[in-house]
Amino acid sequence: MQKNKGILVVVSGFSGAGKGTIMKELMQKHSDQYALSISATTRAPRCGETDGVEYFFKSREEFEQMIADGELVEYAQYVGNYYGTPRAYVEEQLEAGKDVILEIEIQGALKVKERFPDTLLLFVTPPSAEELKNRLVGRGTETMDVIESRLARAMDEADGIEAYDYLVINDVLDACVAEVHEIIKNEHYRVSRNLSAINNMRNELKSFKR
Amino acid sequence: MQKNKGILVVVSGFSGAGKGTIMKELMQKHSDQYALSISATTRAPRCGETDGVEYFFKSREEFEQMIADGELVEYAQYVGNYYGTPRAYVEEQLEAGKDVILEIEIQGALKVKERFPDTLLLFVTPPSAEELKNRLVGRGTETMDVIESRLARAMDEADGIEAYDYLVINDVLDACVAEVHEIIKNEHYRVSRNLSAINNMRNELKSFKR
Repeated sequence: MQKNKGILVVVSGFSGAGKGTIMKELMQKHSDQYALSISATTRAPRCGETDGVEYFFKSREEFEQMIADGELVEYAQYVGNYYGTPRAYVEEQLEAGKDVILEIEIQGALKVKERFPDTLLLFVTPPSAEELKNRLVGRGTETMDVIESRLARAMDEADGIEAYDYLVINDVLDACVAEVHEIIKNEHYRVSRNLSAINNMRNELKSFKR
Repeated sequence: MQKNKGILVVVSGFSGAGKGTIMKELMQKHSDQYALSISATTRAPRCGETDGVEYFFKSREEFEQMIADGELVEYAQYVGNYYGTPRAYVEEQLEAGKDVILEIEIQGALKVKERFPDTLLLFVTPPSAEELKNRLVGRGTETMDVIESRLARAMDEADGIEAYDYLVINDVLDACVAEVHEIIKNEHYRVSRNLSAINNMRNELKSFKR
């Protein structure tokens, strides 16, 4: 089979499930295969952040122009600032055969899936409810308010899991990173992603009959 | 996540793609995880074949009784003999948490998928049309009749590929066996196969809120 276009992969999951760490490891181990999408945002750069590395930093006007021009795959507002996924970078990398990874929440994930129906959706979770509970409660130093808000957030996050393709259990980090890599690699072998190669094979078989 | 029921896996593919070898290797390397379904047949045992090992050998009357009693997941006639997949063994092994592998043709595969909608369908192919062509033509010692009938068969086999989930390319045997193992292993992490575990997690989160 020839090398196909890359696959768009959305990674969501419970807060504290270790999404960021998994993706950092994945990029370090397989930088030739993956591209991490860089978000655009209207929030101010923090100390040490560089435009085009952590984020594409935009003014509110620029960001709204990007929305108007359809340049964002998805966007949302959070604490008064816009965050979004620029379409151009994603498409360039996919065309170049890279699998592009977006780390976004369920609402964004569903918008991406609508625009790119072939998107692979992964949901990262700690190994058990018990473990998730412990991470939400913390070390007994949190106020009930904080715990309640974390719980509410986890329940929101859990609400959309059915929309995802795979559940990724982050117990041992290395095993989890390997698992994510395998899932994405195997996705390239899906019949639905190889239809033109399959048709070519059929046509070659037919042409041989004459 | 708890250990779930096993997954029913159908392996089909082009003649000469090496399905049999792949499955033998898979069973040897991971005999604790997989169970190979044993077919029932009305054909006579060949020298060295044992009832319950290569096949369950049945009389025509016995086989037709099994059909009447709904004891077969699928069956077909081939060169005057019946071949079929006994349901009981498959269900026992799945319940025991083993992934059960059936090696059957497209028609049987579709019947299995109808009865067990969660079946994972794998299609094995040589790495290229060229390679497939070479295997069909053989070493120049075959008559045109033989070649024509192999080609016709390959075209039949290729007809139903869209019904399958994954295309498995058998180039280097060891890599191919590892690939099949990974695909089946990852299938256990499909969200659709973990709905009860997900609901349990949600309920535990909710119960903790009170």
